[in-house]
Amino acid sequence: MDYKLAVIQHKVGFDKKENMERAARGIREGVEKGAQIVVLPEMFNCPYANDYFPEYAESYPRGETYRFLQRQATEHGIYLVGGSVPEKEGESLYNTSFVFGPDGSLLGRHRKMHLFDINVPGKIYFKESDTLSPGEKITLIDTEFGKIGVAICYDVRFPEMFRVMALKGVRLVVIPGAFNMTTGPAHWELLLRARAVDNQIYVAAASPSRDTAGVYTAWGHSMIVDPWGEVVVEAGSGEEVLVADIESAQIERVRQRLPVYKHLKQELYK
Amino acid sequence: MDYKLAVIQHKVGFDKKENMERAARGIREGVEKGAQIVVLPEMFNCPYANDYFPEYAESYPRGETYRFLQRQATEHGIYLVGGSVPEKEGESLYNTSFVFGPDGSLLGRHRKMHLFDINVPGKIYFKESDTLSPGEKITLIDTEFGKIGVAICYDVRFPEMFRVMALKGVRLVVIPGAFNMTTGPAHWELLLRARAVDNQIYVAAASPSRDTAGVYTAWGHSMIVDPWGEVVVEAGSGEEVLVADIESAQIERVRQRLPVYKHLKQELYK
Repeated sequence: MDYKLAVIQHKVGFDKKENMERAARGIREGVEKGAQIVVLPEMFNCPYANDYFPEYAESYPRGETYRFLQRQATEHGIYLVGGSVPEKEGESLYNTSFVFGPDGSLLGRHRKMHLFDINVPGKIYFKESDTLSPGEKITLIDTEFGKIGVAICYDVRFPEMFRVMALKGVRLVVIPGAFNMTTGPAHWELLLRARAVDNQIYVAAASPSRDTAGVYTAWGHSMIVDPWGEVVVEAGSGEEVLVADIESAQIERVRQRLPVYKHLKQELYK
Repeated sequence: MDYKLAVIQHKVGFDKKENMERAARGIREGVEKGAQIVVLPEMFNCPYANDYFPEYAESYPRGETYRFLQRQATEHGIYLVGGSVPEKEGESLYNTSFVFGPDGSLLGRHRKMHLFDINVPGKIYFKESDTLSPGEKITLIDTEFGKIGVAICYDVRFPEMFRVMALKGVRLVVIPGAFNMTTGPAHWELLLRARAVDNQIYVAAASPSRDTAGVYTAWGHSMIVDPWGEVVVEAGSGEEVLVADIESAQIERVRQRLPVYKHLKQELYK
């Protein structure tokens, strides 16, 4: 089924309430443009740094951010992929994406499976695993528009995960992600387009906008990629709301052109 | 161990002898520039069309093309990835890459595992499976410069295959390939770079040069990509010999920056 998809690229600062207000403004703009599914950025309510995850973390379902997301989903009658937030459960913290349906029900909760540990000398050092625990499963969301998969940022580097989702019938993978000024120009578009082409699915990635005064400088460039690997819409580095028509038939068209799934030889990849 | 790698992009026409002479000239140029491993294009001795595969096919080891390749490898003391050729065995034809070592021994024979069947209405129709049979296994070559994997053209669309090769210790995948004027601009560079980045390996792809008067118009743009996804050298559409220094330490450097293999969760990709 065809639908309109919005990707919100908004600024993420230190004030959690302000972050939610920015998200809300983006959601409203997306909905006014007809969006039925809306995706927020990775860590949309919290500065992206280990120092802040424990302080900003909330437990489900009581946390204010969850209630905010649920309210937004029901108020606008949309599927809302709540970017990601630091989630607290017991003593553990996760980088988690909560997905709510138009009736306010929680449809899924993806905990980032692959934690981002990087060390490019002189450029960037970051170890999510210093504070966060990894998720242990792939997350699929059923919607009236087809099955959606959720991946968070560094998850995009693992093609296995996307293939599994696609083989389970996923037609769109949403990726809240915050690549940086090193990996962004080198790999962001490349990996998003590759996942789309390999699996002949839509891919939508939502980044925070670039804030050179913040604790982490995100690359921005949120985008929606079609199953042929074409970038349908792409943001710059500032705040922006992207909206695109997702045409379901485009998936079948591409799969007819290049019947990759017919040619898969799982038994030989040993 | 560091080495020099050459990728030959030469014209492939109807005259098999001429095709081999062009390959020989390319090899010589590569060797003069110091190459220790040389890669020829897909179907380097035969026009890329089902009509010609049966006629040009040869059986190993007697076929003149095999003897040519072996002679070239020993004469120059190089590892020679003989692009691919139509190989005949019994009643079956394969799209096969023969790899010879400096002493003339056959080190491996990769039969294209995924046959290229495409149908983009009004643009391109081609069904390799009309005449060819698929290979049934992944091919690894041991050399003094490290382990090399071989993939042929459409094989590049299957990330599983590359992951398996990388997990088995492959540090360079050579890809004789002939993308066309539709898939070339859309996917050639994207997929080559993605396989390199996903697996943090070198990738080298050799295409025939573009011949708009031929039966199949190849995209060209042979290239060598490093483990960070950077295009080290890239050809245009005409005949060209690419030579690049392959720096083994670059693989470890990238894997230290982004320890993807430490983060792989094979047990969760179900």
